[in-house]
Order: sequence, then structure tokens, then C-alpha cells
Amino acid sequence: MSQLYVVGTGPGDSQLVAPKALTAINASSDLVAYGLYLDLLGGVCDGKTHHDLPLGEEIGRARLALDLAASGKTTALISSGDIGIYAMATLVFELLDLQLQGKESHPEWLDVEIEVIPGISAMQAGASRVGAMLGHDFCTVSLSDLLTPWETIEKRIHSAGSGDFVISFYNPVSKKRDWQLNSARDILLQYRPAETPVLLGRQLTREDESIRIIRLDQLDAKDVDMFTMVSVGNSESKHIVNGSKEWVYTPRGYSKKL
Amino acid sequence: MSQLYVVGTGPGDSQLVAPKALTAINASSDLVAYGLYLDLLGGVCDGKTHHDLPLGEEIGRARLALDLAASGKTTALISSGDIGIYAMATLVFELLDLQLQGKESHPEWLDVEIEVIPGISAMQAGASRVGAMLGHDFCTVSLSDLLTPWETIEKRIHSAGSGDFVISFYNPVSKKRDWQLNSARDILLQYRPAETPVLLGRQLTREDESIRIIRLDQLDAKDVDMFTMVSVGNSESKHIVNGSKEWVYTPRGYSKKL
Repeated sequence: MSQLYVVGTGPGDSQLVAPKALTAINASSDLVAYGLYLDLLGGVCDGKTHHDLPLGEEIGRARLALDLAASGKTTALISSGDIGIYAMATLVFELLDLQLQGKESHPEWLDVEIEVIPGISAMQAGASRVGAMLGHDFCTVSLSDLLTPWETIEKRIHSAGSGDFVISFYNPVSKKRDWQLNSARDILLQYRPAETPVLLGRQLTREDESIRIIRLDQLDAKDVDMFTMVSVGNSESKHIVNGSKEWVYTPRGYSKKL
Repeated sequence: MSQLYVVGTGPGDSQLVAPKALTAINASSDLVAYGLYLDLLGGVCDGKTHHDLPLGEEIGRARLALDLAASGKTTALISSGDIGIYAMATLVFELLDLQLQGKESHPEWLDVEIEVIPGISAMQAGASRVGAMLGHDFCTVSLSDLLTPWETIEKRIHSAGSGDFVISFYNPVSKKRDWQLNSARDILLQYRPAETPVLLGRQLTREDESIRIIRLDQLDAKDVDMFTMVSVGNSESKHIVNGSKEWVYTPRGYSKKL
């Protein structure tokens, strides 16, 4: 019996980790994860063998997880957020697919039982902290052009603009990438008003969380880092202020019926 | 002190409910929810006053939750999935907004402390059960034209098609609506191959869960009901079969680098 759990642990707050995720980690002898994620989880990881690899070594991490599980060690491959959304889960299945095509030489991978456990993604954490920003049709776009050509990304931003979707940008900037977010903003300004609300949510649900609500025309990559969720409202999203509290919501249109 | 928790309880499996959601429910004296959701939660709801309203009475439910909280009763407004995604959260803020504009006469609503607690949405449950369908850019489209004109929905489907997003359809059919899903399929067939994998996930993560993976050209509203999540892959999503297991994943493009 060889078992691999592919586990998302949510945005950071330990109270947003699903019990199913903790049970899977608890049942595992080996954890494959970026170290920071495990620090957020605390005690459940004690006594497990922890395999870390540098950020950027995503393929190596998926491969290691399959190898460990295939060797008989119950293994959890872990990432924050939802591991199925821009994260490690898809790499496990890409590797399996390559094996099925005979392009890898690890037939033992095909005997691994795999269970994927979803988690709460950053866009959801952000939307909930400011109200209900994802109340109507939305999309996600990764601004990383390491694996996807910029032409494809640009086309998607145009589509998201013309479709008037609420948009959450994953990987908005990195140390080496700083211009994509401003390009994305300029594209969206062709489709929706300058005053469209934008959420900048940094370290969401964590101790050092900070949240800002700005206008689309104020969005600037210099205010954003790798730990920031950027969500842009649609043309109907509203920013409301009630005393010291402020909220963003995207209506479904019920109030037209009131 | 008046407190309203706006709580998502995930797709159904009690092991996917965040501890934060249970804590909020536990702290509440009054629960506003569709009865079925509470049955799935079990014991934590015992001894609470349960306010149910018929499906369709969404505005009434949000209003009732604000009224109860404003009267001093700690209240939880509950829905399955993520309450911020096509669900009740946005209605609470629509009502607050109307009050701020002077279009309601409930100034007491403005003193209610509101906390929104996200949950795992059906698209995530579906993607995880078949592997990693949401591994790259995706969008959601509600096919309900009760509040959104069909022209807007149709335009969004075209945008989702041209942008090659993975698409999850919420509210794909209802007792009174049966043609929208087939129209959506026909639109998407203009943009992506007939063999594009489609997930039909019914009662996801619940005891009577059923999962089918079909081709886009096989998608038919007659095979779908209100409890079915319909997710359509993008042009690169792959359906793979490993013995008795089958998976769908949407690659990010790592294997091009192998």
C-alpha cells in the first residue's frame, strides 16, 4: 500500500485548515513542503520527516513526493491555499501522465493511491476579509510568464475585461517580474471604470495581515509583493464605508428586485 | 454588541468544514439557513434557534439575519460551499449599502459586527476529486438568468471561451431552466475541441456522490441537476486513465521544461 496525500492548508490561519487536511498530515510519515507552510501548521508536523526543496524546484518536489509514496512511506505533499489552484497538485498528475505515456521510467508511481484535499484559496480569504467581492462571476489569472507566454496571459486579461469578470491575479509580481501587473491594469482600464475597487490583501489571515482597498487607476506594482493577493472588482462591484469599517461587494442583482 | 457571522460550510463532507466556521456557529444562538445545510453539520447546531425560509427567499434570509443580530442575538447566516461565492454574503452587504444610502430604515444594521468565514466551494471539491482540473487560469459562470440577463451570461461564456479559461458552471440547471447549459456547450464548442474533458460531479464529497468525466460534445442538460457541478476543461486539460482510476488535470506547462 503506497499512499500520497496532496494537501492544501488554506491561507494561513490555522482555524481555516480543514480537519481532513490535518488527518492526512497526521497519517503521513513524510512531508514534502516549503518550510514556511509547515511553520504555520504547528504541532501536527512534529516527528515527521520533512523534505524541503528550494522554491522553484516544483517538479523535483512532485517527483520526490511520488518516489517517497511509491517506496511505501505514507507521504503528504503540502502547499498553502488550495493545492489544486496554481499549485503542486497538477504537477503530480503531469508526472503520472508522462509515466503513462512511457516518457518516465517509474512504473511504481502508477501504484500510488492519490487523494487530493482542497483548501481555501487566497482569493477567498481576501474576498471574505472585505465582504463579498466574489459574489458574482469571477476568474483567476496568473501573471507569471515563466511557463505561460505573455501573449496568452494578455489575451486572457482582455477576455476577463470584455466578460466583466471579477479578477484575482495570482503571482502578481516577483523579484524578477515587475511590469506585468501594471500592463494588466492598463488593459482592464479599457473595459471598466477607473474607480473600480481593487483589493490588496497582504499575508491574508496571518498575524501581519494588511488590507487596502484602492481604485483600479491607483493600482501600482510597487505596492504589491509576492505575498499580496490582488483582486479587481467588476464594473458593478461597490466599495462602501460604514464608520471605521469598509467593505467591497459584487452584487448579484437582488436589490433591483427590492 | 451585536454580531453576525456569515459562514460557508464547504461542499458537504464534515471533515472539510473549517474549525473557524464551527466556532462561529457554536458562539451563535440563532442560525439562519436552509435546513439541509444544518443536517450536514450535525451536533454543533443542537440547541440553537433555527430560522428557515424557503429557497428563493434569499433577500428575506439576509434581512432576517441582520435583524436578529441587530436585536442582540449572536447570529450565524450559513450556506454550504463558500458563502462568498454565488451565495448569501453579498446580499448582506447589498442591504447594508441600501441602508447607507437611506433606502432602508434599519439604522441598527449599521452597528452589527460582521465577520465572513469562507468555505471550500463546489468547484474546488470537484477539481480535487478528479485530480487537478483547476491547475491553471479558470473562471466561474452562473447560468441562472433570474437576476442576470441571458445576453450578459452569453457574453461571459464567449469571453471564457476566447480566453481559454477552465470554466465551472454554477446553477447549471433548475426545474424551470433547462436550455442554458446546452447553449453554453454550443458556444464553448466554437472555441475548444469536442473531446475537451468535462466533469459532472453530483453531491460532491457527500455519501451519495457520483462523478462522471465526459467529453464536451457529450454534455447534455438532461444528465445534470441542481446538485451537479459542471466544470469544463481548457484546451490543454487532459483526461488520463490509470487502471481503474481516472483523472483530469490542467497543466501549467512544467512538462515542457522537462
